[in-house]
Amino acid sequence: MGAMMKYDYWVVGAGITGMTVARVFAEQGKTVLVLDRRSHIGGNCHDEYDEYGIRVHKYGPHIFHTNSKEVWDFLGRFTEWRHYQHKVCAYVESMLLPIPINVDTINRLYDIAVTPATMAAYLASVSVKLDVVKNSRDAVIGRLGVDIYDKFFKNYTLKQWGIPAEEIHPSVCERIPIRFNRDSRYFSDQFQGIPLHGYQKMFERMAAHENIHLLLQADFKDVLGEVEYNGLVYTGPIDEYFNYRHGKLGYRSLRFVFTNYRQASFQEASVVNFPNDYEFTRTTEYRKITGQEAGSTTVSYEYPCNVGDPYYPIPTADNQNLYARYAEDAKKEGDVVFAGRLGSYRYLNMDAACLEGMRIARNLLNLHQNV
Amino acid sequence: MGAMMKYDYWVVGAGITGMTVARVFAEQGKTVLVLDRRSHIGGNCHDEYDEYGIRVHKYGPHIFHTNSKEVWDFLGRFTEWRHYQHKVCAYVESMLLPIPINVDTINRLYDIAVTPATMAAYLASVSVKLDVVKNSRDAVIGRLGVDIYDKFFKNYTLKQWGIPAEEIHPSVCERIPIRFNRDSRYFSDQFQGIPLHGYQKMFERMAAHENIHLLLQADFKDVLGEVEYNGLVYTGPIDEYFNYRHGKLGYRSLRFVFTNYRQASFQEASVVNFPNDYEFTRTTEYRKITGQEAGSTTVSYEYPCNVGDPYYPIPTADNQNLYARYAEDAKKEGDVVFAGRLGSYRYLNMDAACLEGMRIARNLLNLHQNV
Repeated sequence: MGAMMKYDYWVVGAGITGMTVARVFAEQGKTVLVLDRRSHIGGNCHDEYDEYGIRVHKYGPHIFHTNSKEVWDFLGRFTEWRHYQHKVCAYVESMLLPIPINVDTINRLYDIAVTPATMAAYLASVSVKLDVVKNSRDAVIGRLGVDIYDKFFKNYTLKQWGIPAEEIHPSVCERIPIRFNRDSRYFSDQFQGIPLHGYQKMFERMAAHENIHLLLQADFKDVLGEVEYNGLVYTGPIDEYFNYRHGKLGYRSLRFVFTNYRQASFQEASVVNFPNDYEFTRTTEYRKITGQEAGSTTVSYEYPCNVGDPYYPIPTADNQNLYARYAEDAKKEGDVVFAGRLGSYRYLNMDAACLEGMRIARNLLNLHQNV
Repeated sequence: MGAMMKYDYWVVGAGITGMTVARVFAEQGKTVLVLDRRSHIGGNCHDEYDEYGIRVHKYGPHIFHTNSKEVWDFLGRFTEWRHYQHKVCAYVESMLLPIPINVDTINRLYDIAVTPATMAAYLASVSVKLDVVKNSRDAVIGRLGVDIYDKFFKNYTLKQWGIPAEEIHPSVCERIPIRFNRDSRYFSDQFQGIPLHGYQKMFERMAAHENIHLLLQADFKDVLGEVEYNGLVYTGPIDEYFNYRHGKLGYRSLRFVFTNYRQASFQEASVVNFPNDYEFTRTTEYRKITGQEAGSTTVSYEYPCNVGDPYYPIPTADNQNLYARYAEDAKKEGDVVFAGRLGSYRYLNMDAACLEGMRIARNLLNLHQNV
């Protein structure tokens, strides 16, 4: 008796960042312990079959999309792809209109005949001229005008964040795309799809390496000091790592209600946004994403809330200032790299998380090789 | 740095024995580390959805059956049950005949009219009178005669064990039931079924306790000496624990070939035995067991073999003598309890494994309480 659990690297968090880091390490001959407090790997990408035999995304719809061939090829080693192109509709004035806003959205909403050639001029005629964009409402009305803001964005933003768009940093709504053509796809990246046999199978194949051990259902703090490692990649919440010494970072959470319907199809699109009606923000019909054939269909209703698993960093100045203090502390932790959505307090698409994971692992490997 | 991974108990092997032990420990306030070399818990009971969305038993059909209300109720805390009563047919002379042999099997095979009242007399008239039952062939012909032996048992036993029934201990075929009525069920236990939402969900719920950590994809030997514990329950292969110091125990393994068919139904029964045809012993159509509705159906073909995961202890005198030597060694390992199918080198039904797990955990808890 006496030795600790010994690994070259310890990766905390088995989400896409952590699993990518672990796989790159393992393939370079390094031993890795991956820890997660949940009973499964894959983080919020995790999918599973529900009690009706329908594969659902347990933590809300995850559509993979990237312009990085490197990421696409890396993940493609662990899964075949279903070449799915995501579409979203918004339920507005009893119509299902394409989102992001495109030429057809405008034409169907107002029964007019804008074309790709006249779309910019049309939007210029309805948008509000502002000298300063102070908040997310400004970011929308400055590009799309007040009526579209009211019908598509005002109430959705309030549901999503629990605060009015006037109180949210302009960058949140500045990111919302507008399509000056009839492209009704939600994303326009070169590579789009979902793992043909599900995210879980993809992550299982990433994890299936003799150099990787998985410690599940365990909190980092419970086993800290009992694991020996040369490097630690921490993808858990950065404020939790530091015992909330400066206070808690704000996260918006989601509550999902899954319902199974004994019918062939539930809604026209994979995802329907409800900006104005009900308390949920959107409904997702998973079989429309996965292509699964079955006698029933499962739909999730998505309710934003403030308690529960951390999903979205809340983009307020207070939170950014608080994070900056933790980021300063993080720099002083010599053998720890903070990474991923929770470790760096930023929303990351899956491809960005994967790319960051590859970069971090390679940097650490170079670093330790040079020592 | 310095402390090891510390738990009250270390459970090696996440099969039904190990998971039961772990759950009982956890509920008594003990911390438990469960280790398994596979990436999943549940051992050979594990089920999962294949790439066609059909839930299959990855390690062959597992039907739960018990006369123990205690076991039924214990597992029932972690799953609802589908009240499934298992049926098996044997394909003989182009007929699908009920197994175990019952009155209908005899009547359809020979086109005669035996009744439950005359079944015993009929079997007496065809069975071979033997003074000594020396092997498994004797065990069958002494009860059912040579013709039934030849048609149902001779070649199946050869496929199953790779050796003729003449070379197998009589106890193996003595256990085979004969039905003196028309009961076509494979088992006659009071409680029969399968977990309504699958074994995997049941084991996940058993494991979901704050006192249980899961270390997966890790070999016992790799982390031995790095875990501190008061007691160890080892459900891995006993010969491996002792580094095969007396030689390797013989196990029969199985190779499964899964095939998906785009049809509503594949065969008449959940399981069809092929005593004489093909090289596989049986085909299993999983949807007939699980009740899942889907547009296709997945079937496993089962090929016994000598290499692969250990399934069945091979019941020969040599193996029993070898095991006896390991069992002697095991008695000298003070803080280790050897348990389960692999730890005690015996075939165990699931209910027996669960019952043993409960008994072992309670014994250890009493033991350590009294110290």
